[in-house]
Amino acid sequence: MGKEEKDSVSNLTERIIKFRDARDWKQFHNPKDVSLSLVLEAGEVMEHFQWKNAEEMEQCVKEHRDEIGAELADVLYWVLLLGNDLGIDVLEALNRKMDENELRYSVEKAKGNHKKYTELE
Amino acid sequence: MGKEEKDSVSNLTERIIKFRDARDWKQFHNPKDVSLSLVLEAGEVMEHFQWKNAEEMEQCVKEHRDEIGAELADVLYWVLLLGNDLGIDVLEALNRKMDENELRYSVEKAKGNHKKYTELE
Amino acid sequence: MGKEEKDSVSNLTERIIKFRDARDWKQFHNPKDVSLSLVLEAGEVMEHFQWKNAEEMEQCVKEHRDEIGAELADVLYWVLLLGNDLGIDVLEALNRKMDENELRYSVEKAKGNHKKYTELE
Amino acid sequence: MGKEEKDSVSNLTERIIKFRDARDWKQFHNPKDVSLSLVLEAGEVMEHFQWKNAEEMEQCVKEHRDEIGAELADVLYWVLLLGNDLGIDVLEALNRKMDENELRYSVEKAKGNHKKYTELE
Repeated sequence: MGKEEKDSVSNLTERIIKFRDARDWKQFHNPKDVSLSLVLEAGEVMEHFQWKNAEEMEQCVKEHRDEIGAELADVLYWVLLLGNDLGIDVLEALNRKMDENELRYSVEKAKGNHKKYTELE
Repeated sequence: MGKEEKDSVSNLTERIIKFRDARDWKQFHNPKDVSLSLVLEAGEVMEHFQWKNAEEMEQCVKEHRDEIGAELADVLYWVLLLGNDLGIDVLEALNRKMDENELRYSVEKAKGNHKKYTELE
Repeated sequence: MGKEEKDSVSNLTERIIKFRDARDWKQFHNPKDVSLSLVLEAGEVMEHFQWKNAEEMEQCVKEHRDEIGAELADVLYWVLLLGNDLGIDVLEALNRKMDENELRYSVEKAKGNHKKYTELE
Repeated sequence: MGKEEKDSVSNLTERIIKFRDARDWKQFHNPKDVSLSLVLEAGEVMEHFQWKNAEEMEQCVKEHRDEIGAELADVLYWVLLLGNDLGIDVLEALNRKMDENELRYSVEKAKGNHKKYTELE
């Protein structure tokens, strides 16, 4: 696979599903258990930053960028696999979300203000 | 943006970062708090499947595919934003992970067997 | 300490705080990072049951009751420590919650029905 | 119930189980789904502190102590319910954990040092 092909989410999803199906693991992948993996792997990302201040986090990222990248990749793995299994196009879903976000959080009201859009007047 | 451009992760990441920076929200996005969002949004995906058996999950997906898609999109949003902020190419990281997985879990040993590779002889 | 004393939550909380303060660890225990531990330890409990059906869970509990107990104890540890640090009496808070629950989910409406009280007519 | 009785964990556990069983909810309470509640409720505690610095957290606790207490109570609720269902005495488990912690993290090595005991020489 060339770099361009690897960068495509549909190719990556296909790679994940082929990997899974060759091992006959679909039988274990009900949405509940898969979503547990999503949470647990997200937790492993979070764990890298626990007990650290801004400076220590920066140092941690410098020293452990590859490990953190591997944890983020694990989260993405489950996002793509679950999206595939549920018939959800996650890129399309995210673009739709961004359309909404852009309407909800107008630049002038949201600038420098992290409140939820429901709390913005 | 055309459909093809929207499907590209780099374009989507760019869209997220532009959205964020126009609102001056980078100041809030230290890796620790961002990773909390990752966990909390993953939890919202998981919540859809709680207390349900296989049949009820299938029904739930039929009725709430868009909501679940929106939750998965939220997880992906934070994966891409955090990857961007930490200088991590998440697609490359996932391809690397898949290279490792393919070595670790050989088809013949892993077929139908969900044990961790470390437990496979 | 006698068994009765050990069974008291206030004695257990005192034990945890003495342990912490003797090691000068209070400086690390801001509520955000402590709440991360709460989530991560809860995740470790959950991990024991992932990918398992009812029968496999029962088997798992038989074989690993002590480990699961140790994970639950970790969650309780952080509940008591955080309650202490925030000036919250967690037992009182839970009794208050139960008072509310008993009003919200009347037996006749809730019997055998797991919907949230807000969805019960 | 008098205050002293309410303060006892065994009485509180009994109250929770009676409440559950009167509503016939045991049928839903397999350990996997219950542990999801544990994680999700812990997430709700954590959410109170997200995006906040030390000062903002202090302010948040002042203004929302009761809500945070209610979230902590939810976590404790599931700890006690799950412990009950799995035949685990969580107070005993936590006392055992503290015995171990006191051996593992000796005061002289651990003082002011938050490394895991495995990393302490």
